[in-house]
Amino acid sequence: MNKPLKLIVSAVLTLGTLAATATAIAQQAPKPEQLIKWRQSAYQVLAWNTGRIKANLDGQYNKDDVIKAANTIAALANSGLGALYAPGTETGKGWHETTVKPELFTDKKAGEAAGNFNKEANELARVAQLGDLTVIKAQLAKVQGTCKSCHDDFRRKD
Amino acid sequence: MNKPLKLIVSAVLTLGTLAATATAIAQQAPKPEQLIKWRQSAYQVLAWNTGRIKANLDGQYNKDDVIKAANTIAALANSGLGALYAPGTETGKGWHETTVKPELFTDKKAGEAAGNFNKEANELARVAQLGDLTVIKAQLAKVQGTCKSCHDDFRRKD
Repeated sequence: MNKPLKLIVSAVLTLGTLAATATAIAQQAPKPEQLIKWRQSAYQVLAWNTGRIKANLDGQYNKDDVIKAANTIAALANSGLGALYAPGTETGKGWHETTVKPELFTDKKAGEAAGNFNKEANELARVAQLGDLTVIKAQLAKVQGTCKSCHDDFRRKD
Repeated sequence: MNKPLKLIVSAVLTLGTLAATATAIAQQAPKPEQLIKWRQSAYQVLAWNTGRIKANLDGQYNKDDVIKAANTIAALANSGLGALYAPGTETGKGWHETTVKPELFTDKKAGEAAGNFNKEANELARVAQLGDLTVIKAQLAKVQGTCKSCHDDFRRKD
């Protein structure tokens, strides 16, 4: 092979490798619709577990059930839900059309809101272990306050 | 008030209290569709997190990310997902029509399958902390084996 031909072959092979790599990365990265479905699912799991704690406080209290629920909420708060708000997920459909406001992706208050939820959720998991219903009730209200605050700022009403 | 009248009034009041209590319980208990939606959501959250660990093992490894994902899987495994298979949820629609087989509600293998998932998920959370990729990979495969086994036995193919 002469030198210019070698260079062309080499360049084509390099481009081919780059394209294959880009394709592999694109295949691995979850699609926006998948990310939206996952975050909608995560909030459902949170609703299940806050509801469980409330049912325990309003009705028959089972300490172990409250601990399990609080640990699940804390694990999700600590899981890095922010990754499910990757660029490209500002609009689109998961289980249903996303209700996120565009501000979530630009307003630094969103990070603060996530941090508040994280802090209060971990505290809920801590006090669940102690089993004082008044303390658990007050802490659940704090967690739900961080949910509401974020919904007020970053979730569309429609 | 004479005695027969007293008895009637007392009986009516008792029935009224019972009816009010029954209504309150019915209002508190989540509907079957809600339970099905929650369990479908929980499996999505599990898929997100097993996928995250796989992506970390196949690509750029981030120990903290794997720990978060493994802790979320373990918390869900420990959360008491069985409660989402309450009587009345054998059929019905959450996000979509349930794909559960009737056997799940009668076969004691279902409880064993849940126990296996629980055990392997907690072990995954433990080894994620150690950061040995070979061990994490082997343990993730064990967790996914318990998923597959349960799907084979208790999830419809359609």
